[in-house]
Amino acid sequence: MYQLLNTINEPSELRRLKPSQLERLADELRAFILDSVSRTGGHLSSNLGTVELTIALHYVFNTPDDRIVWDVGHQAYPHKILTGRREAMSTLRQLGGLSGFPCRSESAYDTFGTAHSSTSISAALGMARASQLKGEERFAIAVIGDGAMTAGMAFEAMNNAGIYDDVPLIVILNDNEMSISPPVGALNRYLARLISGRFYATAKKGIEQLLSGAPPVLEFLRRMEGHAKGMVAPATLFEEFGFNYIGPIDGHDLDSLIPTLRNLKELKGPQFLHVITKKGQGYSLAEADPVLYHGPGKFNPAEGIKSAAAARKTYTQVFGEWLCDIAEQDQRVVGITPAMREGSGLIEFEQRFPERYYDVGIAEQHAVTFAGGLAVEGLKPVVAIYSTFLQRAYDQLIHDIALQNLPVLFAIDRAGLVGADGATHAGTYDIAFLRCLPNMTVMAASDENECRQMLYTALQQPGPSAVRYPRGVGPGVTIEKQMSALPLGKGEMRRTSSQPAGQRIAILAFGAMVTPSLAAANILDASVANMRFIKPLDDALVQQLAQSHDALVTVEEGCVMGGAGSACIESLLAAGIQRPVLQLGLPDDFIAQGDPARLLANCGLDSAGIVQAIRQRFATHTTQNLGASTPELVI
Amino acid sequence: MYQLLNTINEPSELRRLKPSQLERLADELRAFILDSVSRTGGHLSSNLGTVELTIALHYVFNTPDDRIVWDVGHQAYPHKILTGRREAMSTLRQLGGLSGFPCRSESAYDTFGTAHSSTSISAALGMARASQLKGEERFAIAVIGDGAMTAGMAFEAMNNAGIYDDVPLIVILNDNEMSISPPVGALNRYLARLISGRFYATAKKGIEQLLSGAPPVLEFLRRMEGHAKGMVAPATLFEEFGFNYIGPIDGHDLDSLIPTLRNLKELKGPQFLHVITKKGQGYSLAEADPVLYHGPGKFNPAEGIKSAAAARKTYTQVFGEWLCDIAEQDQRVVGITPAMREGSGLIEFEQRFPERYYDVGIAEQHAVTFAGGLAVEGLKPVVAIYSTFLQRAYDQLIHDIALQNLPVLFAIDRAGLVGADGATHAGTYDIAFLRCLPNMTVMAASDENECRQMLYTALQQPGPSAVRYPRGVGPGVTIEKQMSALPLGKGEMRRTSSQPAGQRIAILAFGAMVTPSLAAANILDASVANMRFIKPLDDALVQQLAQSHDALVTVEEGCVMGGAGSACIESLLAAGIQRPVLQLGLPDDFIAQGDPARLLANCGLDSAGIVQAIRQRFATHTTQNLGASTPELVI
Repeated sequence: MYQLLNTINEPSELRRLKPSQLERLADELRAFILDSVSRTGGHLSSNLGTVELTIALHYVFNTPDDRIVWDVGHQAYPHKILTGRREAMSTLRQLGGLSGFPCRSESAYDTFGTAHSSTSISAALGMARASQLKGEERFAIAVIGDGAMTAGMAFEAMNNAGIYDDVPLIVILNDNEMSISPPVGALNRYLARLISGRFYATAKKGIEQLLSGAPPVLEFLRRMEGHAKGMVAPATLFEEFGFNYIGPIDGHDLDSLIPTLRNLKELKGPQFLHVITKKGQGYSLAEADPVLYHGPGKFNPAEGIKSAAAARKTYTQVFGEWLCDIAEQDQRVVGITPAMREGSGLIEFEQRFPERYYDVGIAEQHAVTFAGGLAVEGLKPVVAIYSTFLQRAYDQLIHDIALQNLPVLFAIDRAGLVGADGATHAGTYDIAFLRCLPNMTVMAASDENECRQMLYTALQQPGPSAVRYPRGVGPGVTIEKQMSALPLGKGEMRRTSSQPAGQRIAILAFGAMVTPSLAAANILDASVANMRFIKPLDDALVQQLAQSHDALVTVEEGCVMGGAGSACIESLLAAGIQRPVLQLGLPDDFIAQGDPARLLANCGLDSAGIVQAIRQRFATHTTQNLGASTPELVI
Repeated sequence: MYQLLNTINEPSELRRLKPSQLERLADELRAFILDSVSRTGGHLSSNLGTVELTIALHYVFNTPDDRIVWDVGHQAYPHKILTGRREAMSTLRQLGGLSGFPCRSESAYDTFGTAHSSTSISAALGMARASQLKGEERFAIAVIGDGAMTAGMAFEAMNNAGIYDDVPLIVILNDNEMSISPPVGALNRYLARLISGRFYATAKKGIEQLLSGAPPVLEFLRRMEGHAKGMVAPATLFEEFGFNYIGPIDGHDLDSLIPTLRNLKELKGPQFLHVITKKGQGYSLAEADPVLYHGPGKFNPAEGIKSAAAARKTYTQVFGEWLCDIAEQDQRVVGITPAMREGSGLIEFEQRFPERYYDVGIAEQHAVTFAGGLAVEGLKPVVAIYSTFLQRAYDQLIHDIALQNLPVLFAIDRAGLVGADGATHAGTYDIAFLRCLPNMTVMAASDENECRQMLYTALQQPGPSAVRYPRGVGPGVTIEKQMSALPLGKGEMRRTSSQPAGQRIAILAFGAMVTPSLAAANILDASVANMRFIKPLDDALVQQLAQSHDALVTVEEGCVMGGAGSACIESLLAAGIQRPVLQLGLPDDFIAQGDPARLLANCGLDSAGIVQAIRQRFATHTTQNLGASTPELVI
């Protein structure tokens, strides 16, 4: 079935093929991807779009000595397949299997790990400058999508690269006219003009000359020179930044790609190749709806994706519905997303409140300060953002929002482990990096209804606030349509131990960890508090639990270091209270991809793990008894 | 002396002046600034450059109803003086006095607080969109320097703004051809071409038409239309982003500025005005050396700045010398700065190792990932960055450096309070936001020599590392030329209490707090450990001190919440040890500007404050005795 593909176990074998064989290889590769992804789930549309580009790059360049950096990296499956990981594709995004993104520890061909957008030009420029410093001849190639080009970081890298007249850097813009959400912003408009307008005609002619002339390189250089003087056509934006601009060319046409890439190798200095591809190329269902086929689960390729039966609501849906409900009540509410309309549950909000919906592009920094500008004028901005992407706007959150105490609400999705996307997408640090900021209110939702009520509570705050909630579904509680504000900085008791003094344990649980903590407490007969607020922390409850129990356990789906549990022990020690405390949470390590429940279990954050950790610590652990007695409880 | 200026207590009074009076006002304002800044210290060059622009803006626009956002904001002294704060300028950057930056709590004319670069377009766009949503007619104006335009965030905002055809947003590029460090990057080259080349001639002609024709607005629109069609001249970069580009015009010529701004008010949609100014304008010494006069201390305007007698070395100098020394020994070492050559002590390094010196522009995100690209190729990148600006690259540090465990060294200057620059520049959170990241090594230097040895130690690490050190000078210890690595994760005892059991206190001090802690310990006869490492923490030392003392005190110049002290208590509780612990550090509040020593004292972080806090907690504080006994010590 994959007769040619099966012979390619590394790119050197690809490079032995005749050019005439490559089209067949592309067909096989595309079929393999469709088959493979439909079995494992994963990113589909983007990978169908990069088949020919990947073949051409490995065919023309001497990988891995020449470095390819795949921006975002969810389009790198063809690359993985051609670089010795064909058979391992059946383990994609699974525990112990292949990462869904390029990963340095996985292959020498994965020269730089990616997953967050827009890092590739910076990384490739670093590699290219390093090769110059070391006197090594190689190319560094960044392959970046049109969506990723809108992030400021890509611009910073372009601005820096453009001054190195001789740097062996090639930026390939993989322009598929669709990032995950539909493209927004002036740059996308510009690219569209570039493709459709006179630029295209001119450039196309240039490419024809480039491909027909002999010797082609000279002709190419002549044209470039013309460009540089502004004689042939108005300079493109990318040329203003010091790059040679070549394109646009058809990214599914190997007869264009290969000669163009070959010629690029003869040029000096930063090159910018504009390639047009189609997401989902070759699979009609994905071509027709690339968003649906962006990151599907398992499906039957012959039938396509079937709409699943209505399962429990995800937290994302709970947020999206809340935002529509509150926007209906309060004209001041506006919603902001950095290019994550679908992922953040904003489709309905956009449709119903288009004037109050802002997709600002992959631009987390701008998203947050833009929200600050809206807030000072009396609006109530809600920034819908993943925990891991909020890291991109940390300074803006501090400097523009928290310092000015502006009422911006951060709806933090994907807080905690995220499963198949792995370490790059995990929301591990938000509790630690948010709670140290003055003026912040930070909550963690333990179920769907609490999420809704917390969002409402947050919106009432006079300053910045954040509500974190995990990926996927919650425990399935009934969601009350009615919204009412929770008491600020107050947790709630969910279970009270009936153990006698000397054997009483209290679990202080945060967010999604309330449910497994309750299950564990039922086994151990422990008390459980749903702490609700990380900041302001319910100091009174912490102290009261310490007074009425013999040991405390904090449980959170976030890093232990500096996390919510640390807030509890800071509170205790500041009050002069001493109690044994066990802090449970995510370990000081990056957690790779896998099934979410399994990953949590591996971290000891399911009910069995919580029980085990408590027993291990308080029932058998021999403590060093220093002035205070650490109880050895019978549990 | 300031006859006209003294009559202006708010912009409405300025707007009553005749145009012919404005030049004299500019002269008085400039003289006032020179006199005032020479008495208080502060930013000079940039403010002499914005005198006419500020007058023109408040003259033409209806401030504060029209919103002006000053990017970075260190050029906003003329604005402060004209908006009711003339007399308060004598308190500039002092405790309880005026902030050196725009500040919402200070004046209704300070519509958005700034200080970190490149936030203004995002904030102004938010304001402009809010006015549209609310049906209010006003302009939002961002005034941004050419240096600040290189940050990705500004690009993100331009990209977003360009799609709103009717947004009342004006971006004024204050192009003074010099950010703090000399300009770098392709955009700066482009601006230079724009000014010097045919663009200038064309644009100048356009401006002349604009100013001469009647009615000017129609002529202006005609020209704009021509621009839009690409007929008059090649479109500028800013037009490609959907802005109308006007300029460049002379930013010291009120006769150009005022009519141009008036005409701008008649236009719809995002406008981009390119204004050329000169830093230090009108004060020949500052014109000749705008860097020296960028942020001087007090000086005699008639004599200019005298080079100060060689004082103790600053930590910045210690770092700069170390970098040169190690670069001499190790060819792999490269230095990276996001536009802070002077501030980070890299002048000599640049001169001696130009090929290994990278000023990437105001582009912290790119700086860090670029360093990652260098690191994967075997180089040893050293990123010189202020604590507060590292916040801008938090995601890159996590996603590109820590996750891939790349050996990038972060030399973190300005860790802790910074004095006159105030809350926006304080390095308060780095300990909390760094120590929660896997693979990081984090150190805090307690003196100059330790700083040097820690930098050397950090460079030996196989993964990412950070050394934090404060602004200004250290205790003045002798710096050993010889470099030797410190034992990883080991603190050192600096003083041992001779108190009897029951009265022994140990201070666990981090970085700059070792010196005041020792002084406090001499008074209290306490033990002192210089902890050196925040991560990996010296758990053995923490436990040993807990075993041999009755109470522990942690002291750090960073936020208490989630900080180094919390690392200590996490360590103790994980080991099952209970001891009273007092955590001292920066409070959960933003600390405004003031004398550094005074600010530290106000936070209780001088020796007297440490003594007082310990006495208060352990000598008189009535603790709730819960199972463990919190000792009431006689000290």
